[in-house]
Amino acid sequence: MKTTRPSFSTILLGQPLETAAVSHQVIGKVPALAVFASDALSSVAYATEEILLILALAGAAYFYLSVPIAVAIAGLLVVLTISYRQTIFAYPGGGGAYIVSRDNLGEMPAQIAGAALLTDYILTVAVSISSGVAQITSAFPGLFPYRVELAVLLILFMTIINLRGVKESSSAFAVPTYFFLGMAFLLLGVGIYQWATGTLAQVSGVRMVADSLQPLTLFLVLRAFSSGCTALTGVEAISNGIPAFKEPRSRNAANTLLAMSGILMTLFIGITLLARAVDAQPSEAETVISQLARTVYGDGIFYLLTLVSTTVILIMAANTSFADFPRLAALQAGDSFLPRQLTFRGSRLVFSWGVFVLAGVAMLLVIIFQASVSALIPLYAVGVFLGFTLSQTGMVVRWHKVSKMQVGEEVEMHGAIMRYDTQWRLKQGVNAFGAVITFIVMLVFVITKFRDGAWVITILLPLLVWIFFRVHHHYQAVAAALSLAGENRVIGPRPLHTIVLIDNLHIASIRAINFALSLGQPWTAVHISIDEIRTADLQRKWAERMDDTPLVILPSPYRSLTEPLVTYVQQLRQQAPDAYIHIILGGLTTESFWEQSLHQNSALVFRSAFRNLDGVAVTNVPFQLHHDNVPKEANIH
Amino acid sequence: MKTTRPSFSTILLGQPLETAAVSHQVIGKVPALAVFASDALSSVAYATEEILLILALAGAAYFYLSVPIAVAIAGLLVVLTISYRQTIFAYPGGGGAYIVSRDNLGEMPAQIAGAALLTDYILTVAVSISSGVAQITSAFPGLFPYRVELAVLLILFMTIINLRGVKESSSAFAVPTYFFLGMAFLLLGVGIYQWATGTLAQVSGVRMVADSLQPLTLFLVLRAFSSGCTALTGVEAISNGIPAFKEPRSRNAANTLLAMSGILMTLFIGITLLARAVDAQPSEAETVISQLARTVYGDGIFYLLTLVSTTVILIMAANTSFADFPRLAALQAGDSFLPRQLTFRGSRLVFSWGVFVLAGVAMLLVIIFQASVSALIPLYAVGVFLGFTLSQTGMVVRWHKVSKMQVGEEVEMHGAIMRYDTQWRLKQGVNAFGAVITFIVMLVFVITKFRDGAWVITILLPLLVWIFFRVHHHYQAVAAALSLAGENRVIGPRPLHTIVLIDNLHIASIRAINFALSLGQPWTAVHISIDEIRTADLQRKWAERMDDTPLVILPSPYRSLTEPLVTYVQQLRQQAPDAYIHIILGGLTTESFWEQSLHQNSALVFRSAFRNLDGVAVTNVPFQLHHDNVPKEANIH
Repeated sequence: MKTTRPSFSTILLGQPLETAAVSHQVIGKVPALAVFASDALSSVAYATEEILLILALAGAAYFYLSVPIAVAIAGLLVVLTISYRQTIFAYPGGGGAYIVSRDNLGEMPAQIAGAALLTDYILTVAVSISSGVAQITSAFPGLFPYRVELAVLLILFMTIINLRGVKESSSAFAVPTYFFLGMAFLLLGVGIYQWATGTLAQVSGVRMVADSLQPLTLFLVLRAFSSGCTALTGVEAISNGIPAFKEPRSRNAANTLLAMSGILMTLFIGITLLARAVDAQPSEAETVISQLARTVYGDGIFYLLTLVSTTVILIMAANTSFADFPRLAALQAGDSFLPRQLTFRGSRLVFSWGVFVLAGVAMLLVIIFQASVSALIPLYAVGVFLGFTLSQTGMVVRWHKVSKMQVGEEVEMHGAIMRYDTQWRLKQGVNAFGAVITFIVMLVFVITKFRDGAWVITILLPLLVWIFFRVHHHYQAVAAALSLAGENRVIGPRPLHTIVLIDNLHIASIRAINFALSLGQPWTAVHISIDEIRTADLQRKWAERMDDTPLVILPSPYRSLTEPLVTYVQQLRQQAPDAYIHIILGGLTTESFWEQSLHQNSALVFRSAFRNLDGVAVTNVPFQLHHDNVPKEANIH
Repeated sequence: MKTTRPSFSTILLGQPLETAAVSHQVIGKVPALAVFASDALSSVAYATEEILLILALAGAAYFYLSVPIAVAIAGLLVVLTISYRQTIFAYPGGGGAYIVSRDNLGEMPAQIAGAALLTDYILTVAVSISSGVAQITSAFPGLFPYRVELAVLLILFMTIINLRGVKESSSAFAVPTYFFLGMAFLLLGVGIYQWATGTLAQVSGVRMVADSLQPLTLFLVLRAFSSGCTALTGVEAISNGIPAFKEPRSRNAANTLLAMSGILMTLFIGITLLARAVDAQPSEAETVISQLARTVYGDGIFYLLTLVSTTVILIMAANTSFADFPRLAALQAGDSFLPRQLTFRGSRLVFSWGVFVLAGVAMLLVIIFQASVSALIPLYAVGVFLGFTLSQTGMVVRWHKVSKMQVGEEVEMHGAIMRYDTQWRLKQGVNAFGAVITFIVMLVFVITKFRDGAWVITILLPLLVWIFFRVHHHYQAVAAALSLAGENRVIGPRPLHTIVLIDNLHIASIRAINFALSLGQPWTAVHISIDEIRTADLQRKWAERMDDTPLVILPSPYRSLTEPLVTYVQQLRQQAPDAYIHIILGGLTTESFWEQSLHQNSALVFRSAFRNLDGVAVTNVPFQLHHDNVPKEANIH
């Protein structure tokens, strides 16, 4: 059947993939860098600008502080890289903050990490797409009024790409990522050459945002530092995505991480320095990247190519979240902290529900915040740094366990093999240092950005964790209620009372009667009388066709379709509490929704009326209109 | 049960009424005038203003033309009143344009009348409510920005009043209608007294709408006449509502019609004359009624009372439509030209679906046209005059039939008794004259208002008529398909193939198995294997509990829940084309929507997968969670 009728979804998403194909969906280092590093790398497009925007509050005279701030952030990146390298080797099956916390710290820290990361994946999409649109509107100011529509369209495009699956998206994204890297390094190279030869121009024609001439306080510097830390978001992506790497997975992933961090550091410091050299101005109308490229290249083709490449890498940064959000959500759902539907793989083996949730909420954020990066930034990165902290703390606990092991002993914990390591003391120290540093950065972020929007996160995260545990308790309660462990689980027949509901006597009701006759059990025909004339008409026809078969008439003085039957069934249940009541409903099936809406569709009404009545089974015996009653099988080979 | 738990709807709408109570819902002449005449009477609040608005295009110098135009419209009212009086006596069961056309002209004219009237009932609500809000914002200009919200709230209020039923609404509306009449005649009386004593002031402080200084053409005068004809909308309401009158119905209704027409004519001409006398100006900011009352009374309490009474009568004018729209829709649905649901009476014996449709579309119109009366007027009244024309034409045909009858002979046609009438020639002439006049007015209306919006109606009415016939043909086709008239309608058992779908082995699936065992027929357990590990787990548990009962495993390589089972069922159908396939599904019922959404709810998915497969019956055997499996009947006395 799959090959004979290509459906709309097949055309859009490609042929369905078999479940057995799951393990083949892995990628090499070069495309992996494109898929997992775009988030981290692309943040250089806005991180420098966000530092300058905060410093501008004290005046342009303090822009020079952007350089030491960038260097401090680079130092933080070194700590994170070393820490995460250790995690990658410890967790070859994928060592995101969620798994590391779950294995080493327990349920509550794991769910906090999950809430933090899911939130930040959504924000990554919103921020990256908004920044990508800002690059477009820098080059084409006429598009500025359509920035929200553009952002929503881009998210829809990402959704389709990712519903097709990761293999396709890596090939679709490798070329543009490397194109961005080429254009970014070319910009830095040409800029440095011009600076060295004294031919570097200065930014002109940009109106800086209004400065409020606040005094320069430590608080303001820390706020600028927090804004710049958005450059580090996405560093953890590779450690989450290890199973997508070719073997040897851990080594490939670790090398990709090193390459990514090196590139990120070079670009971030390079852009910050160049922005100082050309005296770039934070502005609503033109991004810093656009200012740099315009100053270095002028308005020509290289300017445009630089902006195009930046836009594309930002759009792809969202792809990191499209790879990681559904995977983490499936993991949490597998632990029954999120709805189980998130573990279902769609036709292309992707966790489709996760993709839909991510895209939906990100679109909502883009619409609420009008695709403004500066407005979204205060919500961003708290979750990332909370995840960093929990992950490193988990690793510290893990090294403690390792230190207690015998040489040669191997323990498997949730797919991660743990063995003694002579260097455990050094490695534990590295992770502990990382945990403390990232925790401090998180606190700085929350405090300095609290009034700008970080307060939302301080409410949202506990709320999410509470919801996760509510879901978990529900699933546990259901499992207990359904368990066959207790007594009283008799398998065997019970008394049965069959009711055929008769609205009118026509082919559809004859079919319901025939079905009841086929069951070979005694049955009762019941009619709910809303209209006396129609009831009398039915009784006449019934007597003609059905001979002596009795027809029970239930009057419905208040014209309710269900209430008389519910009362009748409750009486039957009272007489025979251990019997099943079996209600058989005829019904019409039409070919279109519009035709169906012209009928009463009472089957739906009855099912919902009886859903809470214990021991009542409802059978639909549909009659298909316009099908001439030819069994469909006649068309099958 | 009704008395033990007062539900939200009982509190909002009152105790349910028994079907037998239907005929008691009738009212006397005095409250009937309030219910059925408010539409016609209230139109004096805007008709004069709409005439002036058109004349203003040629300049204020031509405002004097409003008086002859009003007199011409009053002449038209006389013709209509005499014509409709004849209809009321001919159709004591209710003689709206729809019934008169159906009985005398045939299906197509009847459906055209139905489309025209339904459209205009909706517009009556939109126009009256918008004009009512305009009176409010004349007195309180600060509310002008909230006029759409106000209008929507008022429609919601009308909806609730009318869902309670006509008896309650007549008592709720009688006082304000007579209050309006009192205030309106007081305004005219005091105004005429001031005019006679030379103390009548002139309107001041009103900015007239910008005049475009068009030349005064016959076209413009006819346009002004058309706008004024909105005063006549609602005249037909009484002839539709005769069954709501106390006996003798026809006489009471006819007298009410005479009273209404007299009052309407007096008010309309009086207000138009007074508007001339005080030199009222058509304006966006202040209604003509407000200008009159302010000029006559000043800003005091009488000014406010006049506006309040006008607002209230306009809001109640919408009530005419709430009484007539559902009744006409039920009539058309009973003739199977509209969905049958429109014939269902709600808990208070009201045709609830009709009330909902009317309120919903009217709200939409108010939102689209921003509650502007002038913007809505061009869509209004075409339908009314088309209805007038068809109704009078139908009467002409009827008198022709009457002329062929013997003296003393009585013929019943759809509840209306027809007998010979010596004056048939005169009466036919009256109706023929009415038909021609209203047809001409309709043409004038369409032509002069075409570009302002009447073109919408020329598209909408044929479209509605087309839809009505589509619905009709569908119901006819269904009736033919379901008819027992043909052969091959064997009543008797057929072979049966029972399948119990097993997802996992727990109490809910055990219940489905027990239900299958209770049926006493052979059955097959089937499992759809999406996840190999879960399948293996199930097979182990199955072997433990179910001994030798075979479990059929259907692999689902593409993870589809339904496709393997659909294929399996199709194969079974091929082997035994005349057998029924009976699919039994277990399922969980939780206490809340949120809990339910955490489960797969596959019953729904399976039902929709099998709805088009002939001869497949699907049974739900729900298992209620959190009910401790205590039969609910234990709580019932």
